[in-house]
Amino acid sequence: MPVNYVTPAPEALFPVAGVRLGVAEAGIRKANRRDLTLMALDAGCTVAGVFTENRFCAAPVQVCRRHLAGGNEIRALVINTGVANAGTGEPGMQAAQKTCAAVGKVLGIADTQVLPFSTGVILEPLPVDRLVAGLPAAAADLKADNWHATAHAIMTTDTIAKAASRRVQINGKVVTITGISKGAGMIKPNMATMLGYLATDAGIAQPLLAALVREAADESFNCITVDGDTSTNDSFVMIATGQSGALFADAADAGYAELRQAIVDVARELAQAIVRDGEGATKFITVAVGGGKDRDESRKVGYAIGHSPLVKTAFFASDPNLGRILAAIGYAGIVDLDVDLVRVWLGSEGDEVLVAEKGGRAASYREEDGSRIMKSAEITVRVDLGRGAAAANIYTCDFSYDYVKINADYRS
Amino acid sequence: MPVNYVTPAPEALFPVAGVRLGVAEAGIRKANRRDLTLMALDAGCTVAGVFTENRFCAAPVQVCRRHLAGGNEIRALVINTGVANAGTGEPGMQAAQKTCAAVGKVLGIADTQVLPFSTGVILEPLPVDRLVAGLPAAAADLKADNWHATAHAIMTTDTIAKAASRRVQINGKVVTITGISKGAGMIKPNMATMLGYLATDAGIAQPLLAALVREAADESFNCITVDGDTSTNDSFVMIATGQSGALFADAADAGYAELRQAIVDVARELAQAIVRDGEGATKFITVAVGGGKDRDESRKVGYAIGHSPLVKTAFFASDPNLGRILAAIGYAGIVDLDVDLVRVWLGSEGDEVLVAEKGGRAASYREEDGSRIMKSAEITVRVDLGRGAAAANIYTCDFSYDYVKINADYRS
Repeated sequence: MPVNYVTPAPEALFPVAGVRLGVAEAGIRKANRRDLTLMALDAGCTVAGVFTENRFCAAPVQVCRRHLAGGNEIRALVINTGVANAGTGEPGMQAAQKTCAAVGKVLGIADTQVLPFSTGVILEPLPVDRLVAGLPAAAADLKADNWHATAHAIMTTDTIAKAASRRVQINGKVVTITGISKGAGMIKPNMATMLGYLATDAGIAQPLLAALVREAADESFNCITVDGDTSTNDSFVMIATGQSGALFADAADAGYAELRQAIVDVARELAQAIVRDGEGATKFITVAVGGGKDRDESRKVGYAIGHSPLVKTAFFASDPNLGRILAAIGYAGIVDLDVDLVRVWLGSEGDEVLVAEKGGRAASYREEDGSRIMKSAEITVRVDLGRGAAAANIYTCDFSYDYVKINADYRS
Repeated sequence: MPVNYVTPAPEALFPVAGVRLGVAEAGIRKANRRDLTLMALDAGCTVAGVFTENRFCAAPVQVCRRHLAGGNEIRALVINTGVANAGTGEPGMQAAQKTCAAVGKVLGIADTQVLPFSTGVILEPLPVDRLVAGLPAAAADLKADNWHATAHAIMTTDTIAKAASRRVQINGKVVTITGISKGAGMIKPNMATMLGYLATDAGIAQPLLAALVREAADESFNCITVDGDTSTNDSFVMIATGQSGALFADAADAGYAELRQAIVDVARELAQAIVRDGEGATKFITVAVGGGKDRDESRKVGYAIGHSPLVKTAFFASDPNLGRILAAIGYAGIVDLDVDLVRVWLGSEGDEVLVAEKGGRAASYREEDGSRIMKSAEITVRVDLGRGAAAANIYTCDFSYDYVKINADYRS
């Protein structure tokens, strides 16, 4: 059961002019399952992406990087579930290339204009012939109002489809932003991967989009953790079609700040949905670290708290175990941290209590206040490091019996 | 149930001439429990230690550092369980100092010649008056053949007492090395801490001992992980009494290499006992990484594998989930890793199979071989990075339902 998340209704996922989506059953790993997605982009779009830093990155990730770096106009994305095409060596590269060539043939574009994505079992060969055989059906299904079906088609062990959409008025024009994501652990090494796709009908020049996709990832998909593992296939791709007529070439352009904020908001919603659907999650936790000298050290502290199995099991137990939080702050790697200046609060929906200051428990703190807040499904751990003005948020979930059950039973 | 570990019998823990140990019931947190340990050292010993790098380090750790840095001849160690005296601010410092003063009075030494250690609940004040009241009984109990009782007296949530001892012949003299340790998670934030003490009747000059305690920690307590958390109180202290007559002033001295090896072996046994008693552990796993350019990168890979909750749950499930291991290697942070050169083996007691090479599953690998090995209680993951000659071992345990149960229920 995801924590406070439901998939938006189909009509709440606004089409993005210039993007059509189609899904099909290709029988990649299981029969009777929509496991193949095609996205067709009109001419004139810009596309940029960020990809896993895992050295064992999947073949399709390598092909994506090459096709994006080559300056080709990207006209299609193809996504399969079931098999990740990772840890598959040279045959895996050939399968990814064959996929692109087949998509190019179906849509009448060059194979270098296609970005391929795979998610599923690692170390298994991609059944590329079945994938190719499914492409005509996916192409026949292409339509603009198909985001809801697509959000479902990219799921693997997700318990819920993840999507977000909004319309904003910028420079007198209505701009649409719609995205989908998948993932339930940072890595699901057999059914691997977090994937995210976000499209807008704003026009964003290529260098600006390349910067924006990194900025948006940094404030969304790079701020979440379920188990601290990084997958072989993680990808986040942004598409700007320009068909709304709202065009941006430079970050200083009028209206760009608003567009950027709306895009970051959608990306964050997609990223948070992954944590809310985290394996075994019963609570959604925001770790809000402020008072850092720079953003990096605030992130370090956020991740130390957000990764700690001890902190996460305490949240599962609704146990306001302050020692675990203080210890995580202490080992986060800030060598010259003055613990006497650190303050920590626990909060939930307007109810916030100071729990620690001056190197220990706050004099005003009462255990029953901590316990009350820890029972909530949405909890914020707020930390002031007392060193500067830099802040960072990390989003995580608790650590339950079901996490172990899901991951221990996964291949059984 | 610890994995393949039993406490040595009292007679297997050889006394170390120059060290006497006494235990008492001080009622620090619970009645009818030996919770206070005194170690009295003859004049002429050298003592050195390594301590937690956690910035929220406990008051006794700060006092230990100060007394060791002051060049005082250390003549006593005092250890209490029940309360960690961490996160206790200035009153905690006063309690640790008062403890040293009381030990000094009982033993007729200066308070700066005493090293204090506490382990137990964080954020609670140390009941120093009860501790002081228990000291005469601990002093009355001082004797050389008391290591077994001491190993029990320093336990908190450990399920078994941990000790190791051996005698070696060096330069024609019999040298004894005996040690004890405690801990079951890297951090037990209420009942915090890993503690380790090792004494030898070899004589080791102070600068040499200061180097050796770091080297020994590096090959033992710094190579283990249960949950990746670092406690506020972690300490490892070595004592060299010199009473065997085997004396060493320089690392180049004849026989020193043998002594060093024997000491590292005992330290490693004490450290591994902590992993074997890891919270919820059902398996003991050695991650042996070779072929690194330097030791640091081999350790990084070892810890990436040893920390991964996904790898650890797969071990619990006896599931040879190679994708999880490869993914952990891939995200360990070696930017220029050539995955085509990486090889991975799974092994147990002479039975070893190559599971991955050339970026994917080894052609010769059969799932039933992996499954057979994964069912063992002692498993080695051997990795060759194919980059150089540096190696490092990391010791860890699997991740079971009971880990979550222990840590979620801990304060309930």
